[in-house]
Amino acid sequence: MVAPENVLAQAYAQVRQASLALAAPLSAEDCCVQSMADASPVKWHLAHTTWFFETFVLEAFEPGFVPFHPAFRELFNSYYHGVGSRHPRAQRGLITRPGLTQVLDYRAQVDARLQALLAGPCAPRLHALVELGLQHEQQHQELMLTDIKHLLSCNPLLPAYACGAQRSAEASAGMRWLPLVAGLREIGHAGAGFAFDNELPRHRVYLCACALASRPVSNAEYQAFVEAGGYARSAHWLAEGWDWLQAQGRTAPLYWQRRPQGGWAEFSLYGLQDLQSAQPVVHLSYYEADAYARWAGARLPTEAEWECAAVQWAWAPEAGVQRLHPRAGSEDSMGAGEVWEWTQSSYAPYPGFRPAEGAVGEYNGKFMVNQYVLRGGSCASPSGHLRPSYRNFFPAGACWQFAGLRLARDA
Amino acid sequence: MVAPENVLAQAYAQVRQASLALAAPLSAEDCCVQSMADASPVKWHLAHTTWFFETFVLEAFEPGFVPFHPAFRELFNSYYHGVGSRHPRAQRGLITRPGLTQVLDYRAQVDARLQALLAGPCAPRLHALVELGLQHEQQHQELMLTDIKHLLSCNPLLPAYACGAQRSAEASAGMRWLPLVAGLREIGHAGAGFAFDNELPRHRVYLCACALASRPVSNAEYQAFVEAGGYARSAHWLAEGWDWLQAQGRTAPLYWQRRPQGGWAEFSLYGLQDLQSAQPVVHLSYYEADAYARWAGARLPTEAEWECAAVQWAWAPEAGVQRLHPRAGSEDSMGAGEVWEWTQSSYAPYPGFRPAEGAVGEYNGKFMVNQYVLRGGSCASPSGHLRPSYRNFFPAGACWQFAGLRLARDA
Amino acid sequence: MVAPENVLAQAYAQVRQASLALAAPLSAEDCCVQSMADASPVKWHLAHTTWFFETFVLEAFEPGFVPFHPAFRELFNSYYHGVGSRHPRAQRGLITRPGLTQVLDYRAQVDARLQALLAGPCAPRLHALVELGLQHEQQHQELMLTDIKHLLSCNPLLPAYACGAQRSAEASAGMRWLPLVAGLREIGHAGAGFAFDNELPRHRVYLCACALASRPVSNAEYQAFVEAGGYARSAHWLAEGWDWLQAQGRTAPLYWQRRPQGGWAEFSLYGLQDLQSAQPVVHLSYYEADAYARWAGARLPTEAEWECAAVQWAWAPEAGVQRLHPRAGSEDSMGAGEVWEWTQSSYAPYPGFRPAEGAVGEYNGKFMVNQYVLRGGSCASPSGHLRPSYRNFFPAGACWQFAGLRLARDA
Amino acid sequence: MVAPENVLAQAYAQVRQASLALAAPLSAEDCCVQSMADASPVKWHLAHTTWFFETFVLEAFEPGFVPFHPAFRELFNSYYHGVGSRHPRAQRGLITRPGLTQVLDYRAQVDARLQALLAGPCAPRLHALVELGLQHEQQHQELMLTDIKHLLSCNPLLPAYACGAQRSAEASAGMRWLPLVAGLREIGHAGAGFAFDNELPRHRVYLCACALASRPVSNAEYQAFVEAGGYARSAHWLAEGWDWLQAQGRTAPLYWQRRPQGGWAEFSLYGLQDLQSAQPVVHLSYYEADAYARWAGARLPTEAEWECAAVQWAWAPEAGVQRLHPRAGSEDSMGAGEVWEWTQSSYAPYPGFRPAEGAVGEYNGKFMVNQYVLRGGSCASPSGHLRPSYRNFFPAGACWQFAGLRLARDA
Repeated sequence: MVAPENVLAQAYAQVRQASLALAAPLSAEDCCVQSMADASPVKWHLAHTTWFFETFVLEAFEPGFVPFHPAFRELFNSYYHGVGSRHPRAQRGLITRPGLTQVLDYRAQVDARLQALLAGPCAPRLHALVELGLQHEQQHQELMLTDIKHLLSCNPLLPAYACGAQRSAEASAGMRWLPLVAGLREIGHAGAGFAFDNELPRHRVYLCACALASRPVSNAEYQAFVEAGGYARSAHWLAEGWDWLQAQGRTAPLYWQRRPQGGWAEFSLYGLQDLQSAQPVVHLSYYEADAYARWAGARLPTEAEWECAAVQWAWAPEAGVQRLHPRAGSEDSMGAGEVWEWTQSSYAPYPGFRPAEGAVGEYNGKFMVNQYVLRGGSCASPSGHLRPSYRNFFPAGACWQFAGLRLARDA
Repeated sequence: MVAPENVLAQAYAQVRQASLALAAPLSAEDCCVQSMADASPVKWHLAHTTWFFETFVLEAFEPGFVPFHPAFRELFNSYYHGVGSRHPRAQRGLITRPGLTQVLDYRAQVDARLQALLAGPCAPRLHALVELGLQHEQQHQELMLTDIKHLLSCNPLLPAYACGAQRSAEASAGMRWLPLVAGLREIGHAGAGFAFDNELPRHRVYLCACALASRPVSNAEYQAFVEAGGYARSAHWLAEGWDWLQAQGRTAPLYWQRRPQGGWAEFSLYGLQDLQSAQPVVHLSYYEADAYARWAGARLPTEAEWECAAVQWAWAPEAGVQRLHPRAGSEDSMGAGEVWEWTQSSYAPYPGFRPAEGAVGEYNGKFMVNQYVLRGGSCASPSGHLRPSYRNFFPAGACWQFAGLRLARDA
Repeated sequence: MVAPENVLAQAYAQVRQASLALAAPLSAEDCCVQSMADASPVKWHLAHTTWFFETFVLEAFEPGFVPFHPAFRELFNSYYHGVGSRHPRAQRGLITRPGLTQVLDYRAQVDARLQALLAGPCAPRLHALVELGLQHEQQHQELMLTDIKHLLSCNPLLPAYACGAQRSAEASAGMRWLPLVAGLREIGHAGAGFAFDNELPRHRVYLCACALASRPVSNAEYQAFVEAGGYARSAHWLAEGWDWLQAQGRTAPLYWQRRPQGGWAEFSLYGLQDLQSAQPVVHLSYYEADAYARWAGARLPTEAEWECAAVQWAWAPEAGVQRLHPRAGSEDSMGAGEVWEWTQSSYAPYPGFRPAEGAVGEYNGKFMVNQYVLRGGSCASPSGHLRPSYRNFFPAGACWQFAGLRLARDA
Repeated sequence: MVAPENVLAQAYAQVRQASLALAAPLSAEDCCVQSMADASPVKWHLAHTTWFFETFVLEAFEPGFVPFHPAFRELFNSYYHGVGSRHPRAQRGLITRPGLTQVLDYRAQVDARLQALLAGPCAPRLHALVELGLQHEQQHQELMLTDIKHLLSCNPLLPAYACGAQRSAEASAGMRWLPLVAGLREIGHAGAGFAFDNELPRHRVYLCACALASRPVSNAEYQAFVEAGGYARSAHWLAEGWDWLQAQGRTAPLYWQRRPQGGWAEFSLYGLQDLQSAQPVVHLSYYEADAYARWAGARLPTEAEWECAAVQWAWAPEAGVQRLHPRAGSEDSMGAGEVWEWTQSSYAPYPGFRPAEGAVGEYNGKFMVNQYVLRGGSCASPSGHLRPSYRNFFPAGACWQFAGLRLARDA
């Protein structure tokens, strides 16, 4: 049997290596630029995840701690007021120095020091912080893909991150309604594995009878909405959603392009490719997801409904590596986490919620306003990172994430 | 026994008259100007509430209907896409013509035609729409006060809407924690009286054990937060709340002014007056309410908790007329609706929610995103307008309403 | 012979009365509202011109001076830093109190005190300041018309300020080129009459040979530009003008409307009326004037060229009252000041320029950047206010003034 | 004697090489990022100057022309509407691909093709366009330095572009007033050498008697203005300048920092260094230059005054290479072009101005509004690029250029 420290050290090595693998196809220029305030440069992700280990682990546990570079404490802090001041978020792309090479040196040095620490006796607090740091890095691994996708989409040359677009079957799997009976349930994380503080405490909820679709909405289904004038009629939209639509001037999802010769293309990490009918629609805002559901005579599920359905109907994310584009499902149960699914639940604390102690307590709780919960996970979520109680969250207008929707309806 | 039609006709006359009474202390200039996009001119309120009756009642039920003025259909439409296009919200204050006198003529003519209609047989649909129109006008009566208050506050002369500020006792009533035991409950409107579609359907919820304060937070308590540096330390605030605070440059609630000689004054509809310690704090945003609660080691209640507590602990709004400023309570139960109370619940549809048929279906449902529910009612709410299931809602940054907070805590 | 003081007192009475006459057709509501930051409410004009006399004349010369209202010093200060702080320009429309009646009282009281002062011996400095105040008020009289016109244009009912639109002949007067030979000239104010400091000192300039059109560009001529796609082709426009056009989304001059049935209408102080071909085009920005000139193979004149031509070719403003719309000219010389004429000259100090002493020195000099000089005067300029050396100035994007253009070309 | 083609080919090689030398100290990341909409990435400068030769020379003169990359025509077009559409200016920094290496390939290929073209017979039009392209590239060489300086200044690490800050003498050279007598003069380019279209035609102007300072204002002099409260008193400023100052929140020139221990530092291409008293003050906006002059009891010169003084008092730019920071002068005549000098002249066409034919006619003329002329040249101007008739121009708020001022006064 492997000692827990060794398991942790192996996990550390594996997760840290995975970030480097994501950056491997990119040039130093690709890694440096920030395409909008919501997104960050890949280099910043590489540095910030390292900063997390340096600040919350090495600084607390390494004897005789000396920072790699005194200015990095501020430069690569994301939002932890408890740690001091921060470089402004919208200016992350202006940091051409340190260059990518120096950031890779930073990673290598911090990795060596972390591994030295993990080779010794591992206090529970140390273990917990390293585990949190790894989960944190996995979250940034998904953001690295969504952020670089957005950046490449701003380039008129529409360059691809990787080769080899995938083709799907013409037709989606059929859709069934999976019923949930009314009654008392429990949601929230249970058991011994890792969970974020926002998944706790496990608590009771009452569910009204309802049903959830057996798979997310497909491109073909969403295209029918677009072509039926869905983006031109206010009746389908939340008032704020309609205003958002007008302000954006959008007439289709973020990465869709109408082909001059007819039909649709979609920008992906493989470059521009034909829209694949059977694949789940992706890169929707909450407003778009809600409008589609209304048009389809349905609604978005609540996060409690989603979690109960996921448990009952054996939702399970596919094991394996991060993938670059959602695949069409053939499943007839809950599917396998190809796209994040918007729920109608705003991001709020569970009854009895307690943020973690110290600066890491800023991780989740302070964002619990004007954001909506997404459930499930996506093709771009690292393997092993997800579970049914996982709560992702974004503002209603965010559409650069791999987000789609699953319909729900009252029974 | 009075025939139901007569009851309705009397209610109609009373409610319509109350709007005029609110405008009585104001000049035509006061009634015309718009101080910000969120607020509307009093003249617009007077016209729009009339438009509601003309469009949804007279146009549907009056034989040989002819509009008072063909342009008013668009000019005084607030947000009903189903009725056609609308004058832009932020430009409501530019309509100097029709003048106040012509708008009063408009009211008088529509009133006469409505009363003629109500003197005849009254179909249920007609009855329901008139009742909705009266509830709608009562909502605007509260907005007339909050909007004129904001306008007057923008004038460096700080003119008063009315004479005679009120003084309160030095000390607030003591505060007790009113416990709620865990268990299944029902919330939402029950019974035969009027309710908005957003209060329906009544449905089950599960409540975790908790307790609510017996009264809202007072000025004295909130002042302690301000003077302890509450507006200067990010740790108390939601991330978005802290950004809001910086952007606003606010260091105290909206209408508070630090006196040069020390102490605080508060702008009210009576003009600038000394801050009254025992009165409930008012004109808070959601961000401020949340920050205070966090600082006080408590939290905001959910709307389900609030409604269950209101029923159990005999919350009841005071009968009488609209008042211009919240009063200090001496109550030791739930109090009497002096200020709207922010809850931590985002404004969302109840399970099984169905919007009303037709254009009036736009009344509530399309605003169910990025708003937070307020419960209770305020001094400025018209008498008879409130009930425990009533759901008010505003964006988190809104602070020109009579909104305060009541603390809650987990048991 | 009338004593100079009596002349001044009579002029004072006449000019002050003229402002009241301009406000006479307006309601208190019309007078209170501000339609954009560049424009001011009529009530503000009435108060600010009074403030000018109170602050610069009464305060300096009246024994035992007591202000009419202590807050007015700040409330009705436009931009004189030397006098203290000011109410923000963009919030002038929020001042519903003092109401119009109280402002008229303010005028009456200040007028009485001024007349009392003028009945006594009149020091040169007093005389000069009263004269400046009258010229200042005349400038505001033109602004009262342009500002109320803009406000009424924002009302979808398009109400008229006055009855009785005027019709012009179908065809414009023919256009001739009036030659100017090269050589040394003098420009700037000469003689004993009043002039603003920006018209001084008179100084030499060298003029290259050129020619100016004998009348401003007409609506028919400008319409040809519009219908030839002038607003759709960047080649005609300054780069900044093209950006301005895109940002405004403008496809014709400010107050033009394409009739659904074909042809054009123009909003005027008489309400919406058919575009009159022979009238000068009006309400152009500098960008539009420049683009038209380029399209027409000509250019805008410099202010020196304009002034020399005006002197040589007997330009003279028509005596009489302010008029509400420019008339078609039958002149074959320089015309008679129906529209302000954009020149290509940026607003800059003349060689040897000295601002007036004291706070009134802020009158002109501090605006000498990023503004362009307009020459001539318009139908809306008060009679007796103009002269060939008069320099009006506005930013290049301003188009709510009665501004058109006259073509020039190199010889 | 060298054939003219060979002279041109040598000049071509020299100028093109100089651009590469400027980029040599920079990483690919440094070259890719755009720090504000006004500035461009170094990589974009390298590509755009190449695009100029490819589009205006190769496309017109090379038989069988094939573009290096079809998308570059749009991607690296700056503002030439005549050439087609353009990539948005503010998004130049999002182009991570082509990378720096590919842009260097682009340069190399275009250079080889240009040299092949220049090896043959050289038509006058070809010669003129290549010469224009070289002058254009020299202008961009100065922008490369100002733009990279701005980018580095946004990095909290304040990295240096180059090593080896220079020290100046403690005291500036004394300042004398160089008189200009009144009279008719000529300005504008004369003779056979290259000049931009905006320097033509040479024409007469009348100059009033005045005097210009013998050298630009020094850091020590400007520091006296700052420390006398110059940035806190509106009386010194143009109204628009004061508003600009408040909006920027600036209390000293762009790159100045007050040392915690007292004294001033200045960010330069050598990194942060002590402010050198004797060096000319640099990186001023027009507003700042104007305010200083007013405070000092002087004014800015007109461009005609500047040019006449430069000719009379033997202004001459120093031959040699571009330098990274202005040096203190010991001259007692007009100096040697260490900083661009703001004039009070707005950028306007000379009498008889004709833009060049074709798309290159967009080079200058369409910017002649709301910009002010700078004269002289700076340390960062390439050697051989300047002459007394040279007209540089920027908006009044631009301060990232090497711009200072020279005082003038009326005689």
